[in-house]
Amino acid sequence: MQNRETAAVGSAQDAAPLSGDALEAVLVAELGDALVTRSADIDPRYFTAYNEPAGVRPRALVRPRGVDDVSRTLALCARLGQPVVPQGGLTGLARGAVALGGEIVLSMERFAGIDTLDAAAGTMTVRAGTPLQTVQEAAEAAGFTFGVDLGARGSCQIGGMLATNAGGTRAIRYGMMREQVLGLEAVLADGTVVSSMNRMLKNNAGYDLKQLFIGSEGTLGVVTRAVLRLHPLLAAPATALCRVRDYDAVAGLWNRMRTLPEVVSFEAMWPSFYDYVAHHTPGVAAPFAGDGGFAVLIECATSAPGGDAHHALETGLAAGIDAGLVEDAVLATSERQARDLWTLREGLAIDALPHLVNFDVSLPTGELGAFAERCEAALRARWPDVTCLFFGHVGDGNVHIGVSLAGMTDADVDALDHCVYAVVRDMGGSVSAEHGIGALKRPYLAHTRSDAEIGLMRRLKTALDPHDILNPGKVL
Amino acid sequence: MQNRETAAVGSAQDAAPLSGDALEAVLVAELGDALVTRSADIDPRYFTAYNEPAGVRPRALVRPRGVDDVSRTLALCARLGQPVVPQGGLTGLARGAVALGGEIVLSMERFAGIDTLDAAAGTMTVRAGTPLQTVQEAAEAAGFTFGVDLGARGSCQIGGMLATNAGGTRAIRYGMMREQVLGLEAVLADGTVVSSMNRMLKNNAGYDLKQLFIGSEGTLGVVTRAVLRLHPLLAAPATALCRVRDYDAVAGLWNRMRTLPEVVSFEAMWPSFYDYVAHHTPGVAAPFAGDGGFAVLIECATSAPGGDAHHALETGLAAGIDAGLVEDAVLATSERQARDLWTLREGLAIDALPHLVNFDVSLPTGELGAFAERCEAALRARWPDVTCLFFGHVGDGNVHIGVSLAGMTDADVDALDHCVYAVVRDMGGSVSAEHGIGALKRPYLAHTRSDAEIGLMRRLKTALDPHDILNPGKVL
Repeated sequence: MQNRETAAVGSAQDAAPLSGDALEAVLVAELGDALVTRSADIDPRYFTAYNEPAGVRPRALVRPRGVDDVSRTLALCARLGQPVVPQGGLTGLARGAVALGGEIVLSMERFAGIDTLDAAAGTMTVRAGTPLQTVQEAAEAAGFTFGVDLGARGSCQIGGMLATNAGGTRAIRYGMMREQVLGLEAVLADGTVVSSMNRMLKNNAGYDLKQLFIGSEGTLGVVTRAVLRLHPLLAAPATALCRVRDYDAVAGLWNRMRTLPEVVSFEAMWPSFYDYVAHHTPGVAAPFAGDGGFAVLIECATSAPGGDAHHALETGLAAGIDAGLVEDAVLATSERQARDLWTLREGLAIDALPHLVNFDVSLPTGELGAFAERCEAALRARWPDVTCLFFGHVGDGNVHIGVSLAGMTDADVDALDHCVYAVVRDMGGSVSAEHGIGALKRPYLAHTRSDAEIGLMRRLKTALDPHDILNPGKVL
Repeated sequence: MQNRETAAVGSAQDAAPLSGDALEAVLVAELGDALVTRSADIDPRYFTAYNEPAGVRPRALVRPRGVDDVSRTLALCARLGQPVVPQGGLTGLARGAVALGGEIVLSMERFAGIDTLDAAAGTMTVRAGTPLQTVQEAAEAAGFTFGVDLGARGSCQIGGMLATNAGGTRAIRYGMMREQVLGLEAVLADGTVVSSMNRMLKNNAGYDLKQLFIGSEGTLGVVTRAVLRLHPLLAAPATALCRVRDYDAVAGLWNRMRTLPEVVSFEAMWPSFYDYVAHHTPGVAAPFAGDGGFAVLIECATSAPGGDAHHALETGLAAGIDAGLVEDAVLATSERQARDLWTLREGLAIDALPHLVNFDVSLPTGELGAFAERCEAALRARWPDVTCLFFGHVGDGNVHIGVSLAGMTDADVDALDHCVYAVVRDMGGSVSAEHGIGALKRPYLAHTRSDAEIGLMRRLKTALDPHDILNPGKVL
């Protein structure tokens, strides 16, 4: 046994895969007992995607404590030809961070924490396993705001957010994760550590390598550390909910509101979505419930000393009312009320719908209304009793769809995917706005990207990970 | 002759290079007379870098009229093993768009113009050869602002600005060119057209391929077209010049001013620079001339209806004075006065200094003061009579240095480079903030990037351009 292991460690990637026992023994021997969990001992949370039943048990779990551990693990796996799934907080929605069969899982949860915060430069250096909320709180304590916020803030990790280029509710103000990163450190499939920890807003010295690892979902390298940029601290926000007649008025209101530098979020709820959450969110009194209009949540905030986000929002809404775009509006008068409005928008209530399937797509903002109509018509033509709930960030072209159908079968799920993504393709949109491709949307990548684009992606994958060790079966 | 050409066209890249005549004949035969200019007929402007004497005459000049022309040219050059220099408006400062010897030049100047402007989405689709000013004016006519501005706006082209990730004076508000692009079309070294013309702010469907071509200076592909994002139209700006005691006060003032959402530019002039331009800019009455302090130019502007950038700037400056950061300030009361302040900052007056050498480096904003001191001390230790003038964008960590020395020799120029870039390296800065590497800074890339980073850049270059056809001798 010992001989066989040693031989395997020294051999090329083409060697026959090790048995489970042999693999565990090699991992323990080379990486140490403290880093490795044997397959049988892995807690199901390491192989359970968000809101899904437990999936495939990985062959082993490795939890590195530092960059060197990541490098040694990947170098070993490259020698063994052993596929690896990099894993963050497992809050992704595209099944991108779980094993599909035959992989080990590399969880970054132990490599967490903030290395430094440079207040003069407005930057923070963090480790991949750090939860978003930790970053947000540290930024605020130092007088800064971090640019990305999303519901999973307590569990999602910076490394995973970078690997998936996470978006959220503030992208119209600050951009997605890609725009928050000045420098990045990543480990390649062969164990090479590429440290590109730039701290400047402007740096044009050679290729911007960090871009390779942002949004490529762990298929080109494992993100280990990042230099994040921080923004001036926002004072308490002003939040309002507006009633808007139709989607054209929503788009018109957005084009008006986006001129205000204080706007942080602009979130729209289609009538059917709003009607549902208004009636099924316990403890929240929903304004305009049952009116049958669109509801738009707008949040304004400013970092300017003496700035008045409430005044800006009120002025903007008054202009919207004068222009006939807004029919009615409610301004939150307390933090509690603002939270209630966000609770409606987050729409966790719809999770109770039977057999819910979620979509995350994007189109230019002005085309989202027509998209929703075409999409619902296509679904209803095949499933007359389908429930389609549209809601989303809208200001950045991103809409989510909750589709529910009593007695939905697996074949129905596939047919639903086909139906929705065909409309996205025909209108020139994206099958993934912010959730990534993972394993879930892989069959639909070609709906959004051309053969030439996918060919170039493969060329990059081959150049960086020739033996397909990193997150195989994801994205491509 | 004809036979040899035909053979060469069909042969691999390893064939012996064609003679000049044979190459011209093949280019004309395959691409047509209208696209090709023979070497002897090329106007010197196609081989003259900005502010430099005429350089190496290219073997031919090809000026495509469309993407298909670019594709056919590159496919042909790939077959011939013929190196190509992609060329925009030739306003770059790193000698990145001129031939070094043996290349043909591919000028994009004929593929110019705006394809579409989508006001509802706030996007514009443009061709690579379009001058920046054309884009700015079209954006303004439709009620939008384009996010990048720089002095060469009349001549620089969008393709070149993307290839070099151009920066300029508004990066603190809108980012560099990279942040202005939603979609991109590029042609690979083998002639493959990769069209990735995404129109959405959020799109996480697979790898973000456009990032490969932005800032890689034409070494990985030729940018042919882009979808640019537009920002709400800014009203007329408010401009002020402040007198500030020392660099720490400049950095403190920046940290205060950056909280104002109206700030578009924050530009600092070190005392020696300001003193020089104040006394050598004809027709401009410079405030605080001879005071010996730093001068900071601040510009504020807003897109908010009824917004008041003047009030915001005045309030910010008053707070700066109260905090002891600003000693004196002048607000421009006319467009003419504002332009005069910008004329001082642009500092064209220093071009008259003998043997001027320019630098463009970056460090975190808080460290630029110490950098300037160390840099000047290092230069003065070797050349006691050197003139060092520091100025730059500062809010984004970018400083320019004009170094002048009477009777400077070529050996002095090399020694100056060594001296300045050694200080940048020792302080962890970048040898190129916004100008790129080109041919000029290539010897210093390793001052800023590690062996692992340069190794990964080479891996990308080999994957995308295995025969080193695209802009050889630049960047890497």
